[in-house]
Amino acid sequence: MLDIAIIGSGPAGLSAAINGVIRNKEVKVFGTDPEKSSYLRKAEKIDNYLGMPGISGEEMIRKFVEHAKEMGVQFHSGRVIQIFQMDDYFTLNVENEFIDAKTIILANGIVNEKAIEGETEFLGRGVSYCATCDGPLYRGKTAVLVGDSEAAEEDVNYLAEVCEKVYYVPLHKKTEKVDSRVEVIHDKPVAIEGEETVKTLKLKDNEELNVNGVFIIKDTVPTTQLLQGIEIVDKAIKVNQYMETNLKGVYAAGDCTGRPFQVAKAVGQGTTAALQAVSYLHKNS
Amino acid sequence: MLDIAIIGSGPAGLSAAINGVIRNKEVKVFGTDPEKSSYLRKAEKIDNYLGMPGISGEEMIRKFVEHAKEMGVQFHSGRVIQIFQMDDYFTLNVENEFIDAKTIILANGIVNEKAIEGETEFLGRGVSYCATCDGPLYRGKTAVLVGDSEAAEEDVNYLAEVCEKVYYVPLHKKTEKVDSRVEVIHDKPVAIEGEETVKTLKLKDNEELNVNGVFIIKDTVPTTQLLQGIEIVDKAIKVNQYMETNLKGVYAAGDCTGRPFQVAKAVGQGTTAALQAVSYLHKNS
Repeated sequence: MLDIAIIGSGPAGLSAAINGVIRNKEVKVFGTDPEKSSYLRKAEKIDNYLGMPGISGEEMIRKFVEHAKEMGVQFHSGRVIQIFQMDDYFTLNVENEFIDAKTIILANGIVNEKAIEGETEFLGRGVSYCATCDGPLYRGKTAVLVGDSEAAEEDVNYLAEVCEKVYYVPLHKKTEKVDSRVEVIHDKPVAIEGEETVKTLKLKDNEELNVNGVFIIKDTVPTTQLLQGIEIVDKAIKVNQYMETNLKGVYAAGDCTGRPFQVAKAVGQGTTAALQAVSYLHKNS
Repeated sequence: MLDIAIIGSGPAGLSAAINGVIRNKEVKVFGTDPEKSSYLRKAEKIDNYLGMPGISGEEMIRKFVEHAKEMGVQFHSGRVIQIFQMDDYFTLNVENEFIDAKTIILANGIVNEKAIEGETEFLGRGVSYCATCDGPLYRGKTAVLVGDSEAAEEDVNYLAEVCEKVYYVPLHKKTEKVDSRVEVIHDKPVAIEGEETVKTLKLKDNEELNVNGVFIIKDTVPTTQLLQGIEIVDKAIKVNQYMETNLKGVYAAGDCTGRPFQVAKAVGQGTTAALQAVSYLHKNS
């Protein structure tokens, strides 16, 4: 059982992690490799993180990751699909691996909460956020995968092995290494329709696809789907000054808590969230 | 007229300052030299400021100040005695120099709010926080100065030139360069008493001192005296997640906002406070 599960490997998540480790807690960071994924990489020059003037985003994130690794922070590259609240702990579904944690720190960045029409309505009735988890349900059937990064290709290739027919609607430009059995369609998904379960995915330009399942594989699962009951205000997770959310044992830090979208603020909130989680663990142990 | 007056030169104040400067605002940091005064100096090794593992407090504050100076941050070493709220701006009394500012960021650290009995009651009626400001009122009279650092010695020597008789009650151990006309008493002040104005300072071990004035010179003025009407909860300035206080145009960041007392949190809050002040300036210009 982890003491603290940190969802997100950007500055807020890494800052929370080093503080948790320093306080001798079992900590794990869930997220993609920040040196490849963090938006920070793209910043040419950052001048407002106190103590590191004129640093490039790439160099900054390298220093951050190095610091975390030096402190012994553990990473898990799987996507967290859903977090279930149990009695006094949480269970994370990490692409069908189930991991328990006493507290959660959400540091999942800016999450595009905009769902496809019908996405939320059909979630669990044909819509899935995890090919590894739900792929086997579509053995011999037809599925479409909507993906927003190359990471989705691994999933679509897996579905090609299992399903009768697989469509792939990439939302990003480059597609590489896609299984030849997959039919790639460059288009924009507009609506998911069906009756009891999913029947079609409507597209903007092409004809609609008749499918049994729609897999939506984005780097980040919408927060409201990730953790039921979490309070969102103006697209940001509602926190108080101690980074407590409305759910006991759940903290949030960084861009997911709203403006300003700044490294220093993310790092500071990560520190606060971790120390608050540590204090919660002490009170409840 | 300053755009942003920052009260305090620790990590929160410096972080606020670089962000204000980057956003092209007229910014000034009021406070003692952080390389000499910040509590950070005393930290042997800090491991939880992301990106700078294993750094000494002394080295950290040196890097912070260097960064601020590189960005062109301006410093003012005077003590801010009081901040007056005007119509849509503020006037700072900086040891009798009066400076206007459109917004205020309080980054004055952990302030010992514990007053001497009678201190608040007699403030302005014999009790003063500023020798330069009020010294001339005690020409030919008797005054006592209670000071908590060597910085108070300059003030007590000035009073020795003006007053008939000056007592000095240092709350710290070392006293150097005190004018020979000053009577130094090592004791603990217990209560200030009088009628319309101050008449005596009661001490713990010695007899009471008959005085006309009591000067209390601490590195930091109690926040509630500094700025009338500021809301304090549990000894900390009440802020929301945007570092807004209950007063319009007044923000707070760092240790003065309460736990956790951590560099990363101070730096992050400084960033947020500055950007919020900038946004306020744009809306109100």
